[in-house]
Amino acid sequence: MINLKNDYNTIGSKEILDELIKYSNDKFVGYGEDTKTKELNSLVRSLTEKEVDTYVLSGGTITNIIGLSQILKNPYEAVITVETSHINVHETGAIESSGHKIIFTKAIGGKIDPNGIEATYNKFTDNHMVMPKALYLSNATELGEVYTLDELKELYRIAKKLNLYLFIDGARLPQALASSKYTLKDIASVCDMFYVGGTKLGLPYGELLVIVNDELKVNFKYILKNKLGLLSKGFVGAIMFNRFLRDDYYLTLASHSIEMANLLREELKEYLVYPNTTNQVFIKLDNNKVNNISKYIEFEVWELLNDSAIIRLVTAYNTKKEDVLDAIKIIKES
Amino acid sequence: MINLKNDYNTIGSKEILDELIKYSNDKFVGYGEDTKTKELNSLVRSLTEKEVDTYVLSGGTITNIIGLSQILKNPYEAVITVETSHINVHETGAIESSGHKIIFTKAIGGKIDPNGIEATYNKFTDNHMVMPKALYLSNATELGEVYTLDELKELYRIAKKLNLYLFIDGARLPQALASSKYTLKDIASVCDMFYVGGTKLGLPYGELLVIVNDELKVNFKYILKNKLGLLSKGFVGAIMFNRFLRDDYYLTLASHSIEMANLLREELKEYLVYPNTTNQVFIKLDNNKVNNISKYIEFEVWELLNDSAIIRLVTAYNTKKEDVLDAIKIIKES
Amino acid sequence: MINLKNDYNTIGSKEILDELIKYSNDKFVGYGEDTKTKELNSLVRSLTEKEVDTYVLSGGTITNIIGLSQILKNPYEAVITVETSHINVHETGAIESSGHKIIFTKAIGGKIDPNGIEATYNKFTDNHMVMPKALYLSNATELGEVYTLDELKELYRIAKKLNLYLFIDGARLPQALASSKYTLKDIASVCDMFYVGGTKLGLPYGELLVIVNDELKVNFKYILKNKLGLLSKGFVGAIMFNRFLRDDYYLTLASHSIEMANLLREELKEYLVYPNTTNQVFIKLDNNKVNNISKYIEFEVWELLNDSAIIRLVTAYNTKKEDVLDAIKIIKES
Amino acid sequence: MINLKNDYNTIGSKEILDELIKYSNDKFVGYGEDTKTKELNSLVRSLTEKEVDTYVLSGGTITNIIGLSQILKNPYEAVITVETSHINVHETGAIESSGHKIIFTKAIGGKIDPNGIEATYNKFTDNHMVMPKALYLSNATELGEVYTLDELKELYRIAKKLNLYLFIDGARLPQALASSKYTLKDIASVCDMFYVGGTKLGLPYGELLVIVNDELKVNFKYILKNKLGLLSKGFVGAIMFNRFLRDDYYLTLASHSIEMANLLREELKEYLVYPNTTNQVFIKLDNNKVNNISKYIEFEVWELLNDSAIIRLVTAYNTKKEDVLDAIKIIKES
Repeated sequence: MINLKNDYNTIGSKEILDELIKYSNDKFVGYGEDTKTKELNSLVRSLTEKEVDTYVLSGGTITNIIGLSQILKNPYEAVITVETSHINVHETGAIESSGHKIIFTKAIGGKIDPNGIEATYNKFTDNHMVMPKALYLSNATELGEVYTLDELKELYRIAKKLNLYLFIDGARLPQALASSKYTLKDIASVCDMFYVGGTKLGLPYGELLVIVNDELKVNFKYILKNKLGLLSKGFVGAIMFNRFLRDDYYLTLASHSIEMANLLREELKEYLVYPNTTNQVFIKLDNNKVNNISKYIEFEVWELLNDSAIIRLVTAYNTKKEDVLDAIKIIKES
Repeated sequence: MINLKNDYNTIGSKEILDELIKYSNDKFVGYGEDTKTKELNSLVRSLTEKEVDTYVLSGGTITNIIGLSQILKNPYEAVITVETSHINVHETGAIESSGHKIIFTKAIGGKIDPNGIEATYNKFTDNHMVMPKALYLSNATELGEVYTLDELKELYRIAKKLNLYLFIDGARLPQALASSKYTLKDIASVCDMFYVGGTKLGLPYGELLVIVNDELKVNFKYILKNKLGLLSKGFVGAIMFNRFLRDDYYLTLASHSIEMANLLREELKEYLVYPNTTNQVFIKLDNNKVNNISKYIEFEVWELLNDSAIIRLVTAYNTKKEDVLDAIKIIKES
Repeated sequence: MINLKNDYNTIGSKEILDELIKYSNDKFVGYGEDTKTKELNSLVRSLTEKEVDTYVLSGGTITNIIGLSQILKNPYEAVITVETSHINVHETGAIESSGHKIIFTKAIGGKIDPNGIEATYNKFTDNHMVMPKALYLSNATELGEVYTLDELKELYRIAKKLNLYLFIDGARLPQALASSKYTLKDIASVCDMFYVGGTKLGLPYGELLVIVNDELKVNFKYILKNKLGLLSKGFVGAIMFNRFLRDDYYLTLASHSIEMANLLREELKEYLVYPNTTNQVFIKLDNNKVNNISKYIEFEVWELLNDSAIIRLVTAYNTKKEDVLDAIKIIKES
Repeated sequence: MINLKNDYNTIGSKEILDELIKYSNDKFVGYGEDTKTKELNSLVRSLTEKEVDTYVLSGGTITNIIGLSQILKNPYEAVITVETSHINVHETGAIESSGHKIIFTKAIGGKIDPNGIEATYNKFTDNHMVMPKALYLSNATELGEVYTLDELKELYRIAKKLNLYLFIDGARLPQALASSKYTLKDIASVCDMFYVGGTKLGLPYGELLVIVNDELKVNFKYILKNKLGLLSKGFVGAIMFNRFLRDDYYLTLASHSIEMANLLREELKEYLVYPNTTNQVFIKLDNNKVNNISKYIEFEVWELLNDSAIIRLVTAYNTKKEDVLDAIKIIKES
């Protein structure tokens, strides 16, 4: 079977695991007070050219919720986003369970439409309604699209104008960067808080939360512990992310996945449904084809239509070119 | 420096890391639906001789809170425990943040006094007060003590009589088992839910939650995701715990730490303050000695007294005997 | 000024206040354990012909949230409703603050479209999404519409099929009953929990929550206290609701408001925008007219359009016919 | 039967109810935007000689929790108080349900011992523990004691030194004022937020929350609505409190209850157990006496001892002197 089901189907890349082996006899201070965590912070500060604070958390959902919990201090404060957002659809109500409402704003595909935000914001006029306080977006989006830097700048401008904190879910930020022309430094200049996903790119676990806005740095470790995200062996994540970010290794990993996805997009042009540029490829096949290829390829069914289905093919840092070529052939010929 | 500061100061044991390397090219289904997770469940079922459900979480606090969240359905339901409990002192109010009150009951050292529970329970007589619904204990306790099996049986009997669910925090359960005469199977027969700590015994991260009571199995994965504990690469934890539990490897690791602690207890008898049997050793030294040894040994100051202090020495799965002997010498002679 | 702004603009009806005076020298047990509360329960049981439990709360929002808190035990459980619902728009995020997500389903006007519910429900397929557990509707709706009894029966049938509890927000239930052909008894047979609003119909405060489903009766007073709704002088609300429900007094009050609204609807036919039958009348006037009448009539602007606006006129139990006639004249002639 | 069970056993005083009758034909704006609410604010500002904000809530528990919710913004922030506090014992875990931990500090009777606060505060040293942020006390206390003004000044000084907000639960503040030599103005100068209880002194419902500290005024109406405390007919409470506070009427009511309690204390000196000065009298009687008097007097059993019991006698604004004299006779002679 060729596995194109998702990008979190292997333990992690050899370089990352080797790094763990390398430090396996060393002793470290617990709870993120260690030297490796400090080293990671320095590295991220040099990459972003900002005095950011950094924390490694165990996964995307916990990073979204704890990040937003730091932003939304009062229970009447809400987060604006699009309806397809991960926090809305695929986190089992975690944001509401933490006490906050999601407000929907207009989308273009999986992206926030900048032109709709202010109208959305203005609907909340008095104390019988929630108060919008955060703007949440994913880059890449749930549909694999990437915001241009100009789009991000515009969103940030609007957010600041409306006194909203801008949070970027970066579960696939490396893939977004690898398929665009901007950098971590750019990202850090267009938001208040973001994270760099590792779990979907060769780490056994780990998302790197980066706090840019000074106001959001205050007492973050309290909320991190209170909301269940503080890892006692913080140094493990730090060691992994040091390697991940060093020498653009994360971009190397991401670029490979993009390259493999591009190959799919090119060769399966006729089936493509969403125009995106990262490591998720959405194609529409008739039901017969879907059935046939499922004997050889593992993938996810995204949406069932009448006689056809949209399926999602995901490439990873370690997807083999021969597998991609085989998959293309199977899809075309079955 | 000799590091006796805690038992979570290294990435993990070689055998565990090797296991990760071994499977690093394999592909797995995400979110704990994989074969390794099933294998782990079978292993734990055979060890406990019960049809338990099993989940790997990232750390102790999150396991305590999510476990108790599954037990305490209503916001007026409360958990009974002793004042020194981890959930009361060292979790930054996570249990209250999840909406529940802690009720204190009488302690003997760090243990729950079984004779006090019913009186505690009976104080809650009407709907102006919370309703006790869970009994929480740590084994080993915060002070390194181990409950006897008879004590646990008695606590379970009382819990059932009072309609309380018994939850055992097992952050150091392997160490408790290694220093006592009972097993995982025994533990599974005296409680409704417990966990086996890996983080403090050679895993990069990971606590294995075991749900014994059928009522508590229902929809557990919903609460696991909602309360931020579901790991996308569930197979990583499963692979580690399969190795950890196989061939009593976890007991081997724990036994070594106990042996090293016993050496400390024996040789430092005159300074001992708490009579315990696991891998934490509490000694009282005059301030002068504390100052002197701190140049050579890393440890934690537990309590400052007037002219002296209680310090905590913790041994680990990989503590070297020569380091222990050196530490003993330094303490005695400084 | 003629006040048609809302139906909660006076302290309360003379009969209700007289009832308070009448009992002002009597002594009662606190916290709803008194004879008047028992008497009220008997009265509601006879009116509904069911062994319901009854509680008086202070207002609509607190009744919605506490009622739903009793239904939604787990933080991953969600409530299905339409987007215009009071709990979604006008409760400052109280439902999310209590930990639960709102799911939107298709609406027809302000009503739930029964044909959309199952499709909505079926979107929630696994533990990465919330679990629908309640269906919430208002009768009369936010737009003043009234469900037919057949519609309610159908909704209840669907709810039971899908294992959802049906909750009816009855802030204006008396007005719905007064403008339809069914009764409290009918309502009690088509839902699991509902309430009868008093605040919007001549009570200084008070909503009567009626629990029909036995499962939802368990420990209700604990959640009532925990969620801040237990009133120490429960007998005050009970005395008021005994009078309110006795001899169909509440229907008399409601009927008058409907009659006045019908007069408005009839005479202002040409301006009407929503076809409803209760005590809220929505009319569209050009901006000039809106400005002119605002010197003589107090009303609420519902929606600003370009050259016109939709305004809401609300009649109450004590709205005077002469005021209504004057208002009609003013609107027509200005 | 002579009712000395509590001070919330009647609907309310004639003057208060008459005030409601008086305004029963007037129309008001909803949700506390009315003229009577503004009038009340002016009155309280003149009584306190401070630019306070004021809100009427429905009862003590909801006022405690919403007040503290405004103070405790982060889930890791905690409130320091004594173990006998109402928020700890008699609110069904509402404070924890709202997400916050209670920290106990040393008590003298039902009062906070000022000498213990700093030591309590200093135990919370890092982000593994909660962060104390509020100090909560009741005046009068649960045991009917009254803080001296000097005691309050000292507590406020300590609170400010430790960066804690001081909240005064004033469910029986009028009774405290009536039995001491200080005023509302004094109270407003020694805390950040307090309330004046009406429910226990002749109002059908109502506590008047007074926000002194500017920081705590921000967006209060949002939290009031979100946490279920906003009453649509805010003018009802305002009308009642205007009368309550006008011409020291509340002190007149309170003074009568104190006078009646003093009579009990004087005549039952030999049985007194707690030395207090307000309208609660605690006496110890042998079981035989308790049984005998229970045929003639309604009271609450406070604590069961072996052969005796502590019972509580409570006087109210409308307790009759002849009833008190009869009760004394019955207690002495039975």
